[in-house]
Amino acid sequence: MRSVEWHQGFVRLVDQRFLPGELRLLELERPEQVAQAIRDMAVRGAPAIGATAGFGLALAAWHSPARSQATLLHDLQQAADLLRSARPTAVNLAGAVERVMRRVAAEENVERIRQVALDEAQAIADEEVARNHRLGRIGAELVADGATILHHCHTGALATVDYGTALGVVRAAHEQGKHVHVLVDETRPLLQGARLTAWELQQLGIPFTLIADNAAGHFLRTGQVNLVLVGADRVAANGDVVNKIGTYKLAVVARENAVPFYACVPTSTIDLSIADGDAIPIEERPAEEVTGLTLLGRPVAPEGVAVANPAFDVTPCRYVTGIVTENGVAYPPYAESLPRIVSAANGRDS
Amino acid sequence: MRSVEWHQGFVRLVDQRFLPGELRLLELERPEQVAQAIRDMAVRGAPAIGATAGFGLALAAWHSPARSQATLLHDLQQAADLLRSARPTAVNLAGAVERVMRRVAAEENVERIRQVALDEAQAIADEEVARNHRLGRIGAELVADGATILHHCHTGALATVDYGTALGVVRAAHEQGKHVHVLVDETRPLLQGARLTAWELQQLGIPFTLIADNAAGHFLRTGQVNLVLVGADRVAANGDVVNKIGTYKLAVVARENAVPFYACVPTSTIDLSIADGDAIPIEERPAEEVTGLTLLGRPVAPEGVAVANPAFDVTPCRYVTGIVTENGVAYPPYAESLPRIVSAANGRDS
Repeated sequence: MRSVEWHQGFVRLVDQRFLPGELRLLELERPEQVAQAIRDMAVRGAPAIGATAGFGLALAAWHSPARSQATLLHDLQQAADLLRSARPTAVNLAGAVERVMRRVAAEENVERIRQVALDEAQAIADEEVARNHRLGRIGAELVADGATILHHCHTGALATVDYGTALGVVRAAHEQGKHVHVLVDETRPLLQGARLTAWELQQLGIPFTLIADNAAGHFLRTGQVNLVLVGADRVAANGDVVNKIGTYKLAVVARENAVPFYACVPTSTIDLSIADGDAIPIEERPAEEVTGLTLLGRPVAPEGVAVANPAFDVTPCRYVTGIVTENGVAYPPYAESLPRIVSAANGRDS
Repeated sequence: MRSVEWHQGFVRLVDQRFLPGELRLLELERPEQVAQAIRDMAVRGAPAIGATAGFGLALAAWHSPARSQATLLHDLQQAADLLRSARPTAVNLAGAVERVMRRVAAEENVERIRQVALDEAQAIADEEVARNHRLGRIGAELVADGATILHHCHTGALATVDYGTALGVVRAAHEQGKHVHVLVDETRPLLQGARLTAWELQQLGIPFTLIADNAAGHFLRTGQVNLVLVGADRVAANGDVVNKIGTYKLAVVARENAVPFYACVPTSTIDLSIADGDAIPIEERPAEEVTGLTLLGRPVAPEGVAVANPAFDVTPCRYVTGIVTENGVAYPPYAESLPRIVSAANGRDS
């Protein structure tokens, strides 16, 4: 099963908030529910929320009572605005919405619009999966037999419709028979590493060790890491990487210890319209993600404390050894390599 | 009240595991209980565990049924071995044990040994508090009015008998009327920042914002931090700082952004007998500290995962702007400045 799919007129997705304790599915029938699921991070991961938003528009088309093209497009535009505003940082969400909307705008018949919206959403999901498999094979060439890979956040099947991006690279290396070991950053505040990455690696039988994010520096400094792999929510034209909060610290400390640091992204996550990372909006998330913990049964923060909870940070391109895509690895200078990689990918997809 | 004190024949301490939810006191009557409280981190913080171990030896002397000097010294030696082995990293623990043992060895009378053990333990605690006040005043000179200070782990009154080291600097600056704001690293895995630093700052009325450790890089990179202050569990002769896991990452990223990074320690935490940080034992703590969380009511890691949980890391001296002590600020080269600072302190204490 994919982490998000179209199923008998519904959008069905794995509710990532309940893992690893419970594998719970959500079936959504209205685009408002889809936007809510994205906002609440029932579904997360840049490629997965892109595909989910595409299906959200298909839902809007499918369930709208509109009988004219104009009314249906109006309903779709409303759903598009709602979905696009659910989360600001990942480009895949806006990209998928725009792609479906561009496609339906060319249709004149209500039934055709419904079909085309679904077809396009399905294509987005299918392409993500295909990209991940290609990306994994390409990235696996960077992984030596016996490598220890440090990984931040979660980039596996759940986050990417299927297979994974950075974890897809780990998976491909493992499938090729290479012995790999993953150091799993737990990834506060929402602990996607502990909850999701550890769970997926366990399912796949890939050896790993879970660590607090704070411990990553110790392992880097003492020569116990060969490679750092992360995903991204958006990559700017200059190669700046916007990814889960904590990525920047990791990249700086990796470079300080001469450990290669790669961002693994489908080209759908590269946004050539944005000059650099500081132009990408950084989402501020609720305080409860930081304070809503109990440790060994006890609350961890005094009541009413002020909290800052930026969900992402910017890793300037100078810390990024390479950007692994389904179309090859881009190396600095990224202003030259990224446009080539993206246009090659567009050529292949079309 | 101090975080640890001698009280009517018992060692009384604040059980730091229950804060901020509950201010619970422990009254201990046997040195085994004291060792257990140190091991389980009911009491933690290098100066506090030093003072606690001193009182633990006083307990051993006080409650031993020995009637001869030889038997009492034998009992004390057993207690000393037990206490010393409770935690390996902080030098204050071994230092306090050694200091009391050296002092009692010179006594011949059982009653004198009992009194001297308690007097010496009391002196250790009193000196720590006096050092903290001096250290705070000296460190406050580094804090500009309006400064935002990033702080890792917990270095306040609870960790240091009273007043605090790095937090003592913050407190002294605040008491001088400077406007300061503290960015509080929550400090996984045991969340001493969220649980204890936030609680103490709240009590003191010092403004702060709690953040996930992962967010510290974002605030450093975007110019929102003026100064990083941490404590230490041991400082080596070359100025390498061993402190709570995550300190190393923070120091590297602070330097990368030209933000000054100071370790604030009483001279009792400086160990000139250790050449560099890599010769200091790094304690590995139980997996449950990482996996024993619930987030918004749900477990955060699959059952049975492998966990690595080093409690400390080494920050090489090249990342350390200065080491603030009660006897002045040591600057590089530390091999020259630290011996001067330590011997000046010894001169003053004696």
